[in-house]
Amino acid sequence: MSTFGTLFRVTTYGESHCASVGAIIDGCPPGLPLEPQDVQTQLSRRRPGQSNLTTPRDEKDLVQLQSGIEHGITLGTPIGLLVRNEDQRPRDYSETDLYPRPSHADWTYLEKYGVKASSGGGRSSARETIGRVAAGAIAEKYLKLAYGIEIVAFVSSVGKIRLPSSISPPSQVPSDDDDTVEDVLSPEFVTLLKTITREEVDKYITRCPHAETSERMTKRILRAKESQDSIGGTVTCVIRNVPSGLGEPVFDKLEAKLAHAMLSIPATKAFEVGSGFRGTEVPGSRHNDAFLRREDGSMGTKTNWSGGIQGGITNGEDIYFRIGFKSPATISQAQDTAQYDGTPGTLAARGRHDPCVVPRAVPIVEAMASLVIMDHVLMQHARKASAALLPPITTLPPTMVMPPSGNTA
Amino acid sequence: MSTFGTLFRVTTYGESHCASVGAIIDGCPPGLPLEPQDVQTQLSRRRPGQSNLTTPRDEKDLVQLQSGIEHGITLGTPIGLLVRNEDQRPRDYSETDLYPRPSHADWTYLEKYGVKASSGGGRSSARETIGRVAAGAIAEKYLKLAYGIEIVAFVSSVGKIRLPSSISPPSQVPSDDDDTVEDVLSPEFVTLLKTITREEVDKYITRCPHAETSERMTKRILRAKESQDSIGGTVTCVIRNVPSGLGEPVFDKLEAKLAHAMLSIPATKAFEVGSGFRGTEVPGSRHNDAFLRREDGSMGTKTNWSGGIQGGITNGEDIYFRIGFKSPATISQAQDTAQYDGTPGTLAARGRHDPCVVPRAVPIVEAMASLVIMDHVLMQHARKASAALLPPITTLPPTMVMPPSGNTA
Amino acid sequence: MSTFGTLFRVTTYGESHCASVGAIIDGCPPGLPLEPQDVQTQLSRRRPGQSNLTTPRDEKDLVQLQSGIEHGITLGTPIGLLVRNEDQRPRDYSETDLYPRPSHADWTYLEKYGVKASSGGGRSSARETIGRVAAGAIAEKYLKLAYGIEIVAFVSSVGKIRLPSSISPPSQVPSDDDDTVEDVLSPEFVTLLKTITREEVDKYITRCPHAETSERMTKRILRAKESQDSIGGTVTCVIRNVPSGLGEPVFDKLEAKLAHAMLSIPATKAFEVGSGFRGTEVPGSRHNDAFLRREDGSMGTKTNWSGGIQGGITNGEDIYFRIGFKSPATISQAQDTAQYDGTPGTLAARGRHDPCVVPRAVPIVEAMASLVIMDHVLMQHARKASAALLPPITTLPPTMVMPPSGNTA
Amino acid sequence: MSTFGTLFRVTTYGESHCASVGAIIDGCPPGLPLEPQDVQTQLSRRRPGQSNLTTPRDEKDLVQLQSGIEHGITLGTPIGLLVRNEDQRPRDYSETDLYPRPSHADWTYLEKYGVKASSGGGRSSARETIGRVAAGAIAEKYLKLAYGIEIVAFVSSVGKIRLPSSISPPSQVPSDDDDTVEDVLSPEFVTLLKTITREEVDKYITRCPHAETSERMTKRILRAKESQDSIGGTVTCVIRNVPSGLGEPVFDKLEAKLAHAMLSIPATKAFEVGSGFRGTEVPGSRHNDAFLRREDGSMGTKTNWSGGIQGGITNGEDIYFRIGFKSPATISQAQDTAQYDGTPGTLAARGRHDPCVVPRAVPIVEAMASLVIMDHVLMQHARKASAALLPPITTLPPTMVMPPSGNTA
Repeated sequence: MSTFGTLFRVTTYGESHCASVGAIIDGCPPGLPLEPQDVQTQLSRRRPGQSNLTTPRDEKDLVQLQSGIEHGITLGTPIGLLVRNEDQRPRDYSETDLYPRPSHADWTYLEKYGVKASSGGGRSSARETIGRVAAGAIAEKYLKLAYGIEIVAFVSSVGKIRLPSSISPPSQVPSDDDDTVEDVLSPEFVTLLKTITREEVDKYITRCPHAETSERMTKRILRAKESQDSIGGTVTCVIRNVPSGLGEPVFDKLEAKLAHAMLSIPATKAFEVGSGFRGTEVPGSRHNDAFLRREDGSMGTKTNWSGGIQGGITNGEDIYFRIGFKSPATISQAQDTAQYDGTPGTLAARGRHDPCVVPRAVPIVEAMASLVIMDHVLMQHARKASAALLPPITTLPPTMVMPPSGNTA
Repeated sequence: MSTFGTLFRVTTYGESHCASVGAIIDGCPPGLPLEPQDVQTQLSRRRPGQSNLTTPRDEKDLVQLQSGIEHGITLGTPIGLLVRNEDQRPRDYSETDLYPRPSHADWTYLEKYGVKASSGGGRSSARETIGRVAAGAIAEKYLKLAYGIEIVAFVSSVGKIRLPSSISPPSQVPSDDDDTVEDVLSPEFVTLLKTITREEVDKYITRCPHAETSERMTKRILRAKESQDSIGGTVTCVIRNVPSGLGEPVFDKLEAKLAHAMLSIPATKAFEVGSGFRGTEVPGSRHNDAFLRREDGSMGTKTNWSGGIQGGITNGEDIYFRIGFKSPATISQAQDTAQYDGTPGTLAARGRHDPCVVPRAVPIVEAMASLVIMDHVLMQHARKASAALLPPITTLPPTMVMPPSGNTA
Repeated sequence: MSTFGTLFRVTTYGESHCASVGAIIDGCPPGLPLEPQDVQTQLSRRRPGQSNLTTPRDEKDLVQLQSGIEHGITLGTPIGLLVRNEDQRPRDYSETDLYPRPSHADWTYLEKYGVKASSGGGRSSARETIGRVAAGAIAEKYLKLAYGIEIVAFVSSVGKIRLPSSISPPSQVPSDDDDTVEDVLSPEFVTLLKTITREEVDKYITRCPHAETSERMTKRILRAKESQDSIGGTVTCVIRNVPSGLGEPVFDKLEAKLAHAMLSIPATKAFEVGSGFRGTEVPGSRHNDAFLRREDGSMGTKTNWSGGIQGGITNGEDIYFRIGFKSPATISQAQDTAQYDGTPGTLAARGRHDPCVVPRAVPIVEAMASLVIMDHVLMQHARKASAALLPPITTLPPTMVMPPSGNTA
Repeated sequence: MSTFGTLFRVTTYGESHCASVGAIIDGCPPGLPLEPQDVQTQLSRRRPGQSNLTTPRDEKDLVQLQSGIEHGITLGTPIGLLVRNEDQRPRDYSETDLYPRPSHADWTYLEKYGVKASSGGGRSSARETIGRVAAGAIAEKYLKLAYGIEIVAFVSSVGKIRLPSSISPPSQVPSDDDDTVEDVLSPEFVTLLKTITREEVDKYITRCPHAETSERMTKRILRAKESQDSIGGTVTCVIRNVPSGLGEPVFDKLEAKLAHAMLSIPATKAFEVGSGFRGTEVPGSRHNDAFLRREDGSMGTKTNWSGGIQGGITNGEDIYFRIGFKSPATISQAQDTAQYDGTPGTLAARGRHDPCVVPRAVPIVEAMASLVIMDHVLMQHARKASAALLPPITTLPPTMVMPPSGNTA
């Protein structure tokens, strides 16, 4: 439904043309310094009208915090917030309303609810993501202060154009037995993950942090725009400085929750963590991340094909994953399709829309990542604080009771 | 934690060396005919020792139903079930216990819990999936009887060897502007999805329903086995005859729940639904699934790049998705790694294990798919039955209140 | 936390001095006619300043519906709503802030959160109940339209003054073996439950529907007010026309959920359903509600000591229960107590407050009752609609498969 | 449904005549020493056949722990457990099956599920409580070790016979203005709550720790037994050494969760915490619990009318509450009632049953209390451990950020 999380819980409301969209964030730790600007920054990175690659609708999206904060400090009680919709009138009836937009939610919402919002797709509106981004910004503030966690997403492909250093795609002409060439994780990619910042990402209007590639992507998006078409892409996200021990076996493994979170973002169709699909081609002997003691004395792994998660639980290495966004369904090109009642016909242009969503999806991905990590941090805090009150275990062999690595949540 | 689902809810327990593994299934509709054999069939497809491709441990895995059923009919109350473990003793201490297995859950479990099960990875044991498979078999029985839903999974790749007809991989040498070659969904693949059965799948020990490919896969797996190594692969799953209207906006979109379910299976690293990552390269004008009225009068789509889900809600077309399984972490080859305390060393062979998990993963994927669909069916039943008791809507324009298509849940 | 319900779910936010209080109602069936007035009516019954028995603060409490409704019809998506706070400034510091108010939440909130809202008790503010009342009004609208369900609460005692016809209190001088006098349920009380309406209740400023008793209660409350003191009381609630079959064994029995809901209302300390504590004195042979076939052919019970619930599940008879509200903790009388740091002292007057909360608690009790019934109606709809799709049971003896009574949800 | 709790979660299964009853306990902290005897002790206090006051069925109720424990230490993973049913055959059909037992769950279960277990009331069987008692014993072990928490329940009334020192019942002949006689909490009762132990309680077959009263109760129960009738009663429970800060505003106040837990026990009809219904008669000036600094420097309250909970959150004082159990519905006396199909008739004896449930209810009440406290302890641990990682608050006046009392969870 419209609630996400167990201990850090966000509930959202709102469609395109109602009075406002908003959220209630429950479970935020008390004592967190929080200003509207903490939330506004990410909302502004999400809003349309930032460049000529996005829809020209210029929405202000100013957040109004309602509760749960006094004198700039969270009280531990629910934080209500909302963003007014500029256009609050239900849309007028038009001929295009006879047609469910192909691959959009118009038809499935009507099937589900038996009644249709004037905006068609109801909650599938991109404005619904405002509540997520706001909630994610709050979670992120905590994670930064408590653990120094950094979450950075960026565009890794648009159409067929890929950031060169990212994970290489599955081999096109497979040689069954050729295990020798397995350069899945390039050193450039590993370095990118370790160093990329939001400031660097925002230097490029595509949010792909590679000048030449970004330029090619820009052209590709503009070509889609000019032809009243659309194009998809992928977003890659890295989470750094994650404590070990996060993730709840067995159904709420961290990668399962991340996948859930990411595929709840509109227009997503695919998710992979660590070496992902490409890694399925690599033998275990090469894919396994051997352990080592780092210079600072902490345990780590020599490689990080796992993407920071083993057995559903974080091991302290960087978490990285990639999400596929389909080409937006709403295009202005004429489409041969059928009306709600099955009558064949042609659906012509309606509205103004993003030709490609991935640049604006970046802060949404970061927000959902923050929500997942935050919820699991709270869960693990409950466990660890509870175990800490018990007497030391003396009945087990020492190899079964080892002191944690010092990097645990 | 160890519970999955909202209205149809499975809770599991059990590690490798405890007395039993089991599950409680809560929320099963009353009046469902159910025999132990309904559950046993899928458990037997999951168990090891089925062929020389899997671990030689020959576990019987006989299910014992405990409650919730009388005279072969479900009562609507929780169904308790368990499967005895053959080896119920905690493992003996051995030198290999000094080493956390690379890319396995040994180390992260210890970080999380501060105490280690003798089996190392605790709940990350493959035996944990027994409860899922049993629960899924019960859900599936309902879905079959109530809607004729068919759920079939099969192996679509092992290492670099792919089922020829499946979705083509992303283009290797991308031409930025070449939109003409977009043969993502081959007609063979569409036909395969529409016709494949479990009987057909089980004809091949790899569970890849293509004779020549299966033979190549077999060789690849045996090569991994012989070299004390392992290899990964992918499983594709199709769900047919799904009613429209399933999926809960916004956080519990159907694809989000499927992704969650699939990535909760041990060793999974990737998920894609419909055209997936490959589809991100295709312009919206080609990717959109136009509507049409079918000969039987029902609404449908001309193509099915969406994979049966639009806006997070089923549209009645086949749902299909693909899951990536990494190469198993437990291998007998010597590995240079470190002990729990950071001491470098070499971890040598331990135990007997599957060189490739995808053949045995097939029934687990089917089970998790059943659990997701079942839960959403119950959710939508609640909504639809509730709306049906309200007076007809007379204040809205007719285009906003349309009769459902006849295929809704 | 701040969310109540499984399928019909309300989440609230807001303290006394923040910008607004509000709620998100998720899971409302689509197609429900809903106007602001449906919600406002109950909010106005809840607000202070209605009579000289309540606090003179005259809050307008005008609801602003934000989403989920178009053209007066619910869309099935979340309904956001809020009520502005008149006084949005955090309170000024005053000497009374050195003292936690005795029996109030000031001290426990500080213990829990480590930080204190300027209003002291944070979410324990009576304004928090606005979201509940609004949500309850929406649930109630559905229940009325779908089942003709009527929910009426009224004041049954203030201090020692009781509505004469209500359940007699436990015997003062118990005779161990005197089972003959067990007039727990007077015919007048049964009639009252069957006929009482909100209109009748609202004729009395105490909301006790008995002229003479109401007058005595009024005097008692005014006496408390004049002496800068407070007094407690009880509220009784009846739910009529409830379908049978509501309530989820075993932990979510209907009475358990009602008790949970009622004791989540501020200042409550006690709950009893049906014959309650008094009924524990009555032998089973007299307490049991024998079955009979009613004239209209439906099944019913001759008596209703059970209060409409048997085994945690509704039987179609009226549900009635009683809630005890303590005397408000905030009084203006000087109190000998201690400061936060333990320094003994005297806490003198602060603010203006209700000398007795029960008259204003009436719509809150009705709201929480609506929320519980609504959630259980949706749960049972899911079950019943699911079972209805299964083939008829032919393998059980007919006495084990009986057609439902025609009154089921 | 059949799951209780958020972080410490118990899920149960089982009816009277199935193979076993059991539970899965999820969320137990790792490192807790746990032996079967910890669980068995409470199960044995619950089982029938302990005295001639209970049903003569002599069930062994030996618990079999399945998972989650090794070498006597919990692993943090789910603990599966089960108790075999002695009589595992579905009951034979008999004439009494034509009649739903008055005030029992036979009829409502059939209305709810449309199919009837051979045992009639399905999950309303008393054997369902085995899983609760086992789970509660595990929670209790933790609470004892981590905080020294003590939970003791005892019988406070049978029929009209009351433990003399308990809370006095509401005044029989109320004098509207007589506030002078408010001796709700006798010093004897306060002492009893502070000192009562399970050992003391178990000295009496009624579990009422007062020799003379216990004897009168025994006679009363035997009279019920001889007349093939039944009688109700109340159980009082005290929880000592509770840390402050437990309870989740606003819907999950501690008293709300306790009420939920207690009214989920079969045959319960009433709940009151602290001064309860009786306290509603007492003016605020007397009812308020003034603060004081105790000799050990900690904060406390002079009186404890609140029952240890203020604003839904524990204040560190003893929690005490009382639960009303109705007279058992199953009696052997002939009852004039109707068959399932409405035919009037007489239901004669069936089975052997407890004439009074309160002695055996004592460990069930203790178990449910443990589950509630445990879940809230884990919730508060999550919050407190999270807040502890934030920088000190410097922007608030010192009175709004006070160090916790030293007694918090």
